[in-house]
Amino acid sequence: MLKFSAMEERVKARGIKVYHLNIGQPDVKTPQIFYDTVRSFSAPVLEYVSSNGMPVLLDAVRGYYGKIGAELGRDDILVTAGGSEAFQLILACLLDDGDEIIIPEPYYPNYATSVALAGAKIVPIPTSPSEGYAYADKERIEKCITEKTKAMFLTSPGNPTGNVLSENELKLILDVVKEHELFLICDEVYREFVYSDEPLLSALQFKGYEDNVIVIDSVSKRFSACGARIGMVISRNEKFMEQALKWCQCRLCVATIDQIAAAALYTLPDGYFDAVKEEYKKRRDTMYRKLTEIPGIKCTLPAGAFYFMVTLPVDDADCLQNFLLNEFDDNGDTVLFACGEPFYGTPGKGKNEVRLAYTICCEDIERSVDILKKGIEAYNNK
Amino acid sequence: MLKFSAMEERVKARGIKVYHLNIGQPDVKTPQIFYDTVRSFSAPVLEYVSSNGMPVLLDAVRGYYGKIGAELGRDDILVTAGGSEAFQLILACLLDDGDEIIIPEPYYPNYATSVALAGAKIVPIPTSPSEGYAYADKERIEKCITEKTKAMFLTSPGNPTGNVLSENELKLILDVVKEHELFLICDEVYREFVYSDEPLLSALQFKGYEDNVIVIDSVSKRFSACGARIGMVISRNEKFMEQALKWCQCRLCVATIDQIAAAALYTLPDGYFDAVKEEYKKRRDTMYRKLTEIPGIKCTLPAGAFYFMVTLPVDDADCLQNFLLNEFDDNGDTVLFACGEPFYGTPGKGKNEVRLAYTICCEDIERSVDILKKGIEAYNNK
Repeated sequence: MLKFSAMEERVKARGIKVYHLNIGQPDVKTPQIFYDTVRSFSAPVLEYVSSNGMPVLLDAVRGYYGKIGAELGRDDILVTAGGSEAFQLILACLLDDGDEIIIPEPYYPNYATSVALAGAKIVPIPTSPSEGYAYADKERIEKCITEKTKAMFLTSPGNPTGNVLSENELKLILDVVKEHELFLICDEVYREFVYSDEPLLSALQFKGYEDNVIVIDSVSKRFSACGARIGMVISRNEKFMEQALKWCQCRLCVATIDQIAAAALYTLPDGYFDAVKEEYKKRRDTMYRKLTEIPGIKCTLPAGAFYFMVTLPVDDADCLQNFLLNEFDDNGDTVLFACGEPFYGTPGKGKNEVRLAYTICCEDIERSVDILKKGIEAYNNK
Repeated sequence: MLKFSAMEERVKARGIKVYHLNIGQPDVKTPQIFYDTVRSFSAPVLEYVSSNGMPVLLDAVRGYYGKIGAELGRDDILVTAGGSEAFQLILACLLDDGDEIIIPEPYYPNYATSVALAGAKIVPIPTSPSEGYAYADKERIEKCITEKTKAMFLTSPGNPTGNVLSENELKLILDVVKEHELFLICDEVYREFVYSDEPLLSALQFKGYEDNVIVIDSVSKRFSACGARIGMVISRNEKFMEQALKWCQCRLCVATIDQIAAAALYTLPDGYFDAVKEEYKKRRDTMYRKLTEIPGIKCTLPAGAFYFMVTLPVDDADCLQNFLLNEFDDNGDTVLFACGEPFYGTPGKGKNEVRLAYTICCEDIERSVDILKKGIEAYNNK
């Protein structure tokens, strides 16, 4: 996703405006209470804090999960430097060289780097847009399980697909992993970004799977606080948490002020997220309406998160992106997206796909999809 | 080092005061400019920043190194979540399963955990207090090199020994690693804590070793800002830095506000550290004077950092610590140290050694070494 960054600088230098559909950086204001808490911090010495996380934040997280029906102890939570460190830590604890982890594809490309670093291998579960990227199918999952499989990993709501697991689907997956004695790692950082009226769903709410479930959570997307780098690993598997704590002790602790300010975010009223969700839903609908105006495009209305995975009527999304940055503009504007290939483990897949993030305002979404439409036309008529 | 933490809580609950000689948490006030910068941060959205580090901090670090004669480009620096992440990252990039890394022992125990996580093995260079823990000897280092050796790692000024490499010693080590085509990883986070008038020394100042040298640095000790979790990896080896950047991209970025506030620390006047150093020198001398009052003790006056590695006239430091916490007090006071064994890779070594940190005021140092003296007497007369 960073491949076109250097190129973008040159494009900007030519006076071209670039619309960003490539990154999941919310534009929603970070709540004032975060900054107020940062400003009121006044310990004379900015000391190391405990490796597992500060009690104030652990308890804030417990309160949040208590409200959605998942009772947690302090020992069930480890604070990490964002969801990314959580993922890194989990893999380091679970996977040895040659081990396998099952992940529905398309998936967030950084996962692949972390799995490679752990010396392990991703076994992708293929999904398709025509099925809404669904993958909760016993047979389909079991086909991927070998004696080297240690875990299954899923993101729900999904990045990049927007697929949201239903309660029954999640239950089915939990039963499969339990039967095969695997871990289920659930990245739930987009939990609030669901555009129906379903209650908030977490794998932690299901009883009987305590030893299997590991949840990744984060304040980044939920509270528009990506730069705080506050995430967490949550599990009731004591043996796993013991290992994970050792990993945490090894890197001492997570930044003090960010932890305290993150804790304050959890005191926001329950209604805080309603307006945010309303806005994202409007953006999603706007983008869907505009995308369907592009002839030959294939996409599904995502149920959650803030991305569209889109099949474009072009031979190669990478070449299109190159063209859009270097040979094209529409009244001085062009557009940047995330190319689809890195989201796939299966070679050759995703070549004509892109991920579009609707983290910009509706007006900019309309404009940027218009640019994309014109760009595709120009590219195909080259 | 965390082994006695739970025990300590119970001891405190009994009304016993515990003096802490066990942790390297400076008690020096965090400079006001750090907090002023934190408070003036006001971006409406706390966004992700670049994976390699924010330009304001990269340039601050470049300015600092420029003053000690090491010119750096922005691409030579990667900002990390403290020195610990820097170490983690370096090992992940350099070591594969079965590889070896040479480290003079005793060494900081967390290094061993990180090396184990990388699937590699520490080959310790034995040192002795009677030689001031010196290890810059060609033959001694070469004896540790095998075909599996990828790097040598050193901390200067040393934790826990206080050993400070001279310019000639560092040059000798650089020549050995260059000859054998190894990396030299230098943890220089205690660079300012040297109690002679030698100019600041960094492996980055030597020309001709650009491909071998990787430096770990941090604001934690230097500016008493441990809880900011701001460290860095510095190297001019382009291939290594390319790999290291990928690792950084995988965990997105380091906390924004802490990076900006850390940058401000580098604007402190050159004289800032003089008073800090003066205070630590006084503490070191106080501790040395008091320690030599304990019959049968063996220790060397450390040249730098803020620790003493001490051989105690007891059979087992672990047992002594247990005794001091559970069966002993002097007028309601007792003392906590770091047991020596985890600082060694060679089995059986360090059993009667402890690491004492002089990060508390002189008065408390006097009192705690008195307690230690009485505790040892009571323990040996049990």
